[in-house]
Amino acid sequence: MIRLDLIGIGTGNPEHLTVQAIRTMNGADLILLPRKGSEKSGLLDVRRTICDAVLTQPVRVVEFDLPTRDAGGEYINAVQSWHNAIAAAWAKQMALHLPEGGRLALLVWGDPSLYDSTLRIAGRLIGGGMAIDIRVVPGISSLHALTAAHAIPLNQLAEAVTITTGRLLRAHGWPGDATSIVVMLDEGGAFQTLDGSEFEIWWGACLGMEHEALISGRLAQIGDDIMQRRSALRQEHGWIMDIYLLRKIA
Amino acid sequence: MIRLDLIGIGTGNPEHLTVQAIRTMNGADLILLPRKGSEKSGLLDVRRTICDAVLTQPVRVVEFDLPTRDAGGEYINAVQSWHNAIAAAWAKQMALHLPEGGRLALLVWGDPSLYDSTLRIAGRLIGGGMAIDIRVVPGISSLHALTAAHAIPLNQLAEAVTITTGRLLRAHGWPGDATSIVVMLDEGGAFQTLDGSEFEIWWGACLGMEHEALISGRLAQIGDDIMQRRSALRQEHGWIMDIYLLRKIA
Ligand SMILES: C[S@@+](CC[C@H](N)C(=O)[O-])C[C@H]1O[C@@H](n2cnc3c(N)ncnc32)[C@H](O)[C@@H]1O
Ligand SMILES: C[S@@+](CC[C@H](N)C(=O)[O-])C[C@H]1O[C@@H](n2cnc3c(N)ncnc32)[C@H](O)[C@@H]1O
Repeated sequence: MIRLDLIGIGTGNPEHLTVQAIRTMNGADLILLPRKGSEKSGLLDVRRTICDAVLTQPVRVVEFDLPTRDAGGEYINAVQSWHNAIAAAWAKQMALHLPEGGRLALLVWGDPSLYDSTLRIAGRLIGGGMAIDIRVVPGISSLHALTAAHAIPLNQLAEAVTITTGRLLRAHGWPGDATSIVVMLDEGGAFQTLDGSEFEIWWGACLGMEHEALISGRLAQIGDDIMQRRSALRQEHGWIMDIYLLRKIA
Repeated sequence: MIRLDLIGIGTGNPEHLTVQAIRTMNGADLILLPRKGSEKSGLLDVRRTICDAVLTQPVRVVEFDLPTRDAGGEYINAVQSWHNAIAAAWAKQMALHLPEGGRLALLVWGDPSLYDSTLRIAGRLIGGGMAIDIRVVPGISSLHALTAAHAIPLNQLAEAVTITTGRLLRAHGWPGDATSIVVMLDEGGAFQTLDGSEFEIWWGACLGMEHEALISGRLAQIGDDIMQRRSALRQEHGWIMDIYLLRKIA
């Protein structure tokens, strides 16, 4: 029997870690850290730093190579087979390091339930017949990191908020009668498909990290600044994560 | 000059506290704890417990009576004048305990940016001419506490999620072409206005607390169970907070 803890670690700031996350990490027999290729090695470094900083118990920490996703083909299919490959990679590590079972922990970026596939991948192992007890330790998500960095409310008083992706915003435009939306997983400037004069934007990149960048204002006036800042950061660091809140100007 | 830290403390489990929250609390000169009347004294107890558990520095902790909201009248107006009264109550405490300025911290339930008025109330002080530097420390919200407790993803693969309120769900029904919504601030069973056969629900009450309650399944089959459980909890504890995720059955 494996107990699998999916631990939310926040969005790059090691101080986002909760007391529960620290306790759960220290209770693990094994922590697996994925290597995602040299480009994104910053993500591995954050996890290593966190383990070094908070482990006070003799927990085994093992790095393994994460399979990469096929760039071509249909999106949903490519993602499905990628998830299968990751599930197989985990199973191999469990067989190697926890042959008698025990407690495995994975450190998940932000909150484990928000636009992250770890839970779905773990579900595949159960679907494949493994006896796994899955627990989730909630984490500070980029959603909350964004609004905290700008010191703004997520929602307007008594109103709703839609969380969506760059892909959906490009494909379907502004969602229905929403007044505020948060856009994640944007490959670059999906907000440019909107009429800038109608919106305000609060943008954040690399939240919680040393090179955190924040820009806010009327979209028509600062959309270009954001695109420039984004590509400068990307050039400097090899990759970038950004997220933004858009509100209709009343 | 006042520096005001709004610190997210999570949703009732003291282990939701982040390292950043603990450090910021210890850096404060004054922490104000609101007394909300005997019914909700459980909320005050959580904050007291947290202060006792994490303060290692000599930080002054002061309790004060939070003004109560007028029950009658138009909702938005009643809320506005309530916020003014709270801003005045804070200003009084600051004048009393931080006459020379300094660092004030408020412990905000969940995440300070999610359906919480603390930021708007602080904005009133600035609007009223006070020199305040506001910072937000993100916290584990009930959104993430809900999905963690059920060990489920918030969003479906590559899809959007709308966060809304019980009031909006009652007034406007299911929002547009949403596939998943989270309902907060529900005074009781707004999901009953939907056709239960079309939805699955993941419901959580008192998340992170000793008497946490979780129910999930097809809405048509378990809607009544939820209502019963809800009123039993309410009767036992005097008040209750609940939140739920609804998904359209494909
Ligand atoms: C695969 S999702 C994972 C989200 C994560 N589970 C969370 O709770 O934030 C990655 C997306 O999250 C957002 N994101 C995550 N970390 C971020 C950060 N430090 N700064 C800005 N955006 C971030 C970006 O929109 C990015 O495209
Ligand atoms: C005024 S809002 C504050 C939300 C808070 N800032 C957060 O991040 O969760 C209160 C609503 O949050 C939800 N909530 C907060 N704490 C909760 C808990 N422990 N269990 C269930 N729902 C909770 C409920 O929907 C409740 O009506």
